Amino acid sequence: MSEKRDDPTLGQDYLTRLDAYWRAANYLSVGQIYLMDNPLLEQPLQLSHVKPRLLGHWGTTPGLNFIYAHLNRVICKYDLNMLYVAGPGHGGPALVANVYLEGTYSEYYPNISEDKIGLRRLFKQFSFPGGIPSHVAPETPGSIHEGGELGYALSHATGAVFDNPDLIVACVIGDGEAETGPLATSWHSNKFLNPVRDGAVLPILHLNGYKIAGPTVFARIPREELTQLMQGYGYEPYFVDEAQSVAATHLAMAKTLDRMIERIRQIQADARSQGFRQRPRWPMLVLRTPKGWTGPEEVDGVPVENSWRSHQVPLAKLAEKNDHLKQLETWMRSYKPEELFTSEGKLRPELRELAPVGKRRMGDNPHANGGVLLRDLRMPDFREYAIELPAPGSRVAEATRVQGKFLCDVMKMNLGTANFRLFAPDEFTSNRWDEVLKVTSRMSVAEIESTDTAVAPDGRVMEVLSEHQCQGWLEGYLLTGRHGFFSCYEAFIHIVDSMFNQHAKWLKTCNHIPWRRPIASLNYLLTSHVWRQDHNGFSHQDPGFIDHVVNKKPEIVRVYLPPDANTLLSVTDHCLRSRNYVNVVVAGKQPQHQWLSMDAAIKHCSAGASIWTWASNDQDGAPDIVMACAGDVPTLETLAAVSLLREWLPSLKIRVVNVVNLMTLQPESEHPHGMSDKEFDAMFTTDRPIVFAFHGYPWLIHRLTYRRKGHDNLHVRGYKEEGTTTTPFDMTVLNDLDRFHLAEAAIDLVPSLGAQAGHLRQRLRDKLIEHREYVRRHGEDMPEVRDWIWTVK
Amino acid sequence: MSEKRDDPTLGQDYLTRLDAYWRAANYLSVGQIYLMDNPLLEQPLQLSHVKPRLLGHWGTTPGLNFIYAHLNRVICKYDLNMLYVAGPGHGGPALVANVYLEGTYSEYYPNISEDKIGLRRLFKQFSFPGGIPSHVAPETPGSIHEGGELGYALSHATGAVFDNPDLIVACVIGDGEAETGPLATSWHSNKFLNPVRDGAVLPILHLNGYKIAGPTVFARIPREELTQLMQGYGYEPYFVDEAQSVAATHLAMAKTLDRMIERIRQIQADARSQGFRQRPRWPMLVLRTPKGWTGPEEVDGVPVENSWRSHQVPLAKLAEKNDHLKQLETWMRSYKPEELFTSEGKLRPELRELAPVGKRRMGDNPHANGGVLLRDLRMPDFREYAIELPAPGSRVAEATRVQGKFLCDVMKMNLGTANFRLFAPDEFTSNRWDEVLKVTSRMSVAEIESTDTAVAPDGRVMEVLSEHQCQGWLEGYLLTGRHGFFSCYEAFIHIVDSMFNQHAKWLKTCNHIPWRRPIASLNYLLTSHVWRQDHNGFSHQDPGFIDHVVNKKPEIVRVYLPPDANTLLSVTDHCLRSRNYVNVVVAGKQPQHQWLSMDAAIKHCSAGASIWTWASNDQDGAPDIVMACAGDVPTLETLAAVSLLREWLPSLKIRVVNVVNLMTLQPESEHPHGMSDKEFDAMFTTDRPIVFAFHGYPWLIHRLTYRRKGHDNLHVRGYKEEGTTTTPFDMTVLNDLDRFHLAEAAIDLVPSLGAQAGHLRQRLRDKLIEHREYVRRHGEDMPEVRDWIWTVK
Repeated sequence: MSEKRDDPTLGQDYLTRLDAYWRAANYLSVGQIYLMDNPLLEQPLQLSHVKPRLLGHWGTTPGLNFIYAHLNRVICKYDLNMLYVAGPGHGGPALVANVYLEGTYSEYYPNISEDKIGLRRLFKQFSFPGGIPSHVAPETPGSIHEGGELGYALSHATGAVFDNPDLIVACVIGDGEAETGPLATSWHSNKFLNPVRDGAVLPILHLNGYKIAGPTVFARIPREELTQLMQGYGYEPYFVDEAQSVAATHLAMAKTLDRMIERIRQIQADARSQGFRQRPRWPMLVLRTPKGWTGPEEVDGVPVENSWRSHQVPLAKLAEKNDHLKQLETWMRSYKPEELFTSEGKLRPELRELAPVGKRRMGDNPHANGGVLLRDLRMPDFREYAIELPAPGSRVAEATRVQGKFLCDVMKMNLGTANFRLFAPDEFTSNRWDEVLKVTSRMSVAEIESTDTAVAPDGRVMEVLSEHQCQGWLEGYLLTGRHGFFSCYEAFIHIVDSMFNQHAKWLKTCNHIPWRRPIASLNYLLTSHVWRQDHNGFSHQDPGFIDHVVNKKPEIVRVYLPPDANTLLSVTDHCLRSRNYVNVVVAGKQPQHQWLSMDAAIKHCSAGASIWTWASNDQDGAPDIVMACAGDVPTLETLAAVSLLREWLPSLKIRVVNVVNLMTLQPESEHPHGMSDKEFDAMFTTDRPIVFAFHGYPWLIHRLTYRRKGHDNLHVRGYKEEGTTTTPFDMTVLNDLDRFHLAEAAIDLVPSLGAQAGHLRQRLRDKLIEHREYVRRHGEDMPEVRDWIWTVK
Repeated sequence: MSEKRDDPTLGQDYLTRLDAYWRAANYLSVGQIYLMDNPLLEQPLQLSHVKPRLLGHWGTTPGLNFIYAHLNRVICKYDLNMLYVAGPGHGGPALVANVYLEGTYSEYYPNISEDKIGLRRLFKQFSFPGGIPSHVAPETPGSIHEGGELGYALSHATGAVFDNPDLIVACVIGDGEAETGPLATSWHSNKFLNPVRDGAVLPILHLNGYKIAGPTVFARIPREELTQLMQGYGYEPYFVDEAQSVAATHLAMAKTLDRMIERIRQIQADARSQGFRQRPRWPMLVLRTPKGWTGPEEVDGVPVENSWRSHQVPLAKLAEKNDHLKQLETWMRSYKPEELFTSEGKLRPELRELAPVGKRRMGDNPHANGGVLLRDLRMPDFREYAIELPAPGSRVAEATRVQGKFLCDVMKMNLGTANFRLFAPDEFTSNRWDEVLKVTSRMSVAEIESTDTAVAPDGRVMEVLSEHQCQGWLEGYLLTGRHGFFSCYEAFIHIVDSMFNQHAKWLKTCNHIPWRRPIASLNYLLTSHVWRQDHNGFSHQDPGFIDHVVNKKPEIVRVYLPPDANTLLSVTDHCLRSRNYVNVVVAGKQPQHQWLSMDAAIKHCSAGASIWTWASNDQDGAPDIVMACAGDVPTLETLAAVSLLREWLPSLKIRVVNVVNLMTLQPESEHPHGMSDKEFDAMFTTDRPIVFAFHGYPWLIHRLTYRRKGHDNLHVRGYKEEGTTTTPFDMTVLNDLDRFHLAEAAIDLVPSLGAQAGHLRQRLRDKLIEHREYVRRHGEDMPEVRDWIWTVK
């Protein structure tokens, strides 16, 4: 091959310097884990230079450093626009070291300067109180991926390259992470990448052989099998192994990465000149290097390098064992810091010039701080999609279908800027967003057949039967400055509880990092909800995601329960304009009565909760009872109960309150949307009984309101984990949330009814039995009961 | 090939009858979805015979039926002990139909008899109020796998065959499910199956091409790629496609299954005669048949068979469109029911004889009702593992390490019966259960290297970096009548929130099915908890799994927060003996002060919560303040706060309450473990302030106690989503849970302190700042503050 002669970056001088760069990164990594003083080892190492608590993960770090140094090389050689996603992001010292070496870190954090003082601070701050986390984190420039929970590296990387044709995301996947389910399916992301309009992901499966204490699956299958697996996933695998000499390893890595980059460019050039023809076999790399590479080979007589023992801190007993301290010093000096840094503590210029400059540095790539690239969506006026409503209850509509029409036009207006996508796990049509398929398609670069409906390689609807993939792609897309909406069956959003956690934590942390710019909110539509699992029953019934969500910081989370289509439109518009939140919208997809005109809906959503005076008859004084509700089915049942009560007991003064923004129930001291106590008391009263019909588990309402004065008067009905495949009406009966139970609850709570109450109660119970049986037989409401659906008469 | 001549079950007569059997299953499936009368179509079909609401999933059903019929054939031919796991279990009609045809259903449900009346009931009950769910469910004999949430079929199947050498679990995986993360990694289960002592899983990847509305990934990649993928996962793939004729398809399926069964037997015979040598390539089947096979080809002019349109109910507008009704009748008659059933409505004997008999019927296999096979564990006396404690606080221990010693002996005593395994996602050693590795190993049949520690093909510690796999395997193991414990990092148990949901729902339903026998509880140890994420920080901090758990039925869920090793031992013993629960145990793994002797621990755990009189000084009257706590870190901080207060304010009467069983806080009407109001009031008082230091999010304590009298006096401190990589002490400070904040809270709540309070408050704040700084510098407590750790003096 002639390339070695022709290409100075494959020459010995270059690769020797690249090795020195790698050593510098390793040196800084070890320094971060251990030292708080004497950063250049100018003095013999003493215990007083070492941190009192040793924390961090060494094992994966040298491999991450090796990859970073080599990616720098190809960035410079090919002028690449590249991001680095570190799946094993618990190796935080690696990314911090590299971002520091390339100069980015000191630009973002001037206190951590490129000199001896800066070095000392760099070391000390790591995993130190008041310092920085031990993982790759929002604080790390260049990162869109927290290294805590494993499994999402490749889906984040994929989301980042959607609609970024120029971008390559190098995605390091540890062999530990490779065992997780989400990662295992995320290899299939290549069926959803269009080489014409999307960028490229460069997966690097890093086999270092061990997890915390045991071997990894991927390192213990024959190479032939691993090759088949990667080919089966649709990739062209390349292999680099630690070679006999370090120089040979560098050369192998450099030549292999060159081939891979050239292959990526060729795939892209072909697709972009000829249009999309077929799914390419993207290259991927399998890199096999020892865990804890270049670290101590043995400690206390047992192997550490190339063993699980190097997972965290290889030499941990410095205070107790003097030879540990000596071994640490030997280890650190083995990198020859004097060859790497000037006496002032700055990386030597002949090494620094190996790093890219400016925005080509992976630490400073603007895609990693997506807010700086974020453009507002072009939005149609959501009012134009309103359901015209002569009177409350006078029309029936499928709320999410109406929302779909709005989203269709949002999609249409932003096709040009290509910064909006919709995500769903096989439920896009089921959730009634079909209208969108008139202006775009389901995205696929796998085989498409004539019987398929709305499937195309340039689609912007991302549908795959994996909530993990939907969430991971969307996060990657948002974090790089774009917009999206995720629609999901309510019960199965729990599949990504933990991913939500990580994203919410990321956003919370970013709120306190000045250079992190706000990004578009993560928007969920949860539908096919607990009350309408007609086809699926008990296994599909769980409204608890919102309970999970409210455990996160109030500054991040928003929960909306729009009771009809017009309120859903207003909420949707708001969510798409908001920044740095997680918005959870729960709304039904089934035909339901509509309550509010668009003007009323906007007012109601702005307030978050309000008295529905048109359904109330307490205008001239205090109510005997407050009938509150949140969620579409509870709203229907409440209004039917009110209708019934007003017919049977016209003298009873009823106030109807509907809550669309759940966060308004909390005190204003606890959530920015919280009502003042004065507002709350005026709405719910402080002394009248409240029957609250709630969409989810009843506890949540108690939790949100327990500091309110009227809390002891509050009687919440909600889902109490009773259900099966039955009629929607029966579902409400099983959970005491139906109109008859709600009416009875109201009667029970109004003492003034006296003897009347017993009679009414019996009437309600009789009617319930009669109606339930009728619905079972006929599959629909009794005509008489249907009339109780609220309509302003 | 001579086999056709030799083997009558490959002959034309047999396969013609097998086809008729399949038609019978298809007929019964369609009947379940549509009919409530006229089950044998003795009269022309009328709308009155059809259910008012049409619900269910046809698309996957004929494929499930085809497989079931062919599995019956190999069961009979080879006398197999076989279970059927239906990944696409939303095709509920298929399993019900087959279990009915083989006679099992009528034995379990005598009302659904094998005659015309029974047929009519069989049809009507499906997806009907008061009937059975639309999915494969606990109600379905032969099932260990609810067909609701997709992703877990293969891990359930694997768990079922662990330690069941004679068992084969045929596991159908839909091409939709195959896209999920959990399923994608569960193919690797073959690295954890030992052919000597475990049974075999026979995976059947069923490609029918479509999900709800779009194509599947697995059906749209070339066969070559799919072959590579399955080979890469370590399998030997076999392929069966719908052939030109039905007869040819049957023959291909029969011959292929024969080859696969013979291959399984050969693998097992080799391994069992020669001992385990190397991981075998187990056979797996790719079966490609059209979605909605044998159903209507077209409806209203658009394709339905072999299209996503057959996913649910292909003909749905019977009432509106007369030709739909006609088409349904034609469809049903195409199966020729008159050839399948006698005029009495019983399957014809020449077909019935194709089904296995007795316990060989997949519907009646005892492994599917694991409780009937369950044997109690042999248990050592947990008291023997006690930490000897001269006085509260006088010793330090790692609670989970002590638990590990107990579990080691449980493991040892049950090696013979081979019905106990431990599960952990790469955290077994990290969580301090190492002792167990003295009597068994980590299980792996992948390559093992000399540098590995305690890895062997006959290990009983199941360690893979996938919470999904751990949970799925354990569920499969428990559901087939065995025992286990799952240890997990607290934050990442959220990864299986949704799997927990499904298992809890399964257990709840089983409680109401008389023939389902109780199984061993699903036991979680959650450790590496929120307060001690020294190496990992914020991303690893989430104590909210218990919030999620308490949304499920109280009859199923139990939550324990043992404050030390002896209480953990007592709780562990209890969990391993319990049945049909999900037990969540939260306990730290770090060195912590120990509080209770074994006798005291047993008493405390039996009560669930009690007053720690040795730490209290209110013996002679009512306390000024109650200091309550739950969880190990909060208990330490509470006792340190009490120690400090008693030193600084000896006249203050303090009562210390510790809660180990969180469910005791609920009213007895809401949870079987709930304290009576009388007991609760006696413990917490009704009028004294309570400072409650809690392990998790503070809301949970409010939720559990909000109906108690003293609730308004309750001030809960817990995790409020503040954290980073910092000292353990700092973590408590960030969340106002440290000893100084707790003491200050107490002072604030005792009005009688008057002017003293201000002075004390200042002293506490000064001391906090001083101590915090000291810990940062030295990595350990100030000696003076260390002395405040409670020790009875």
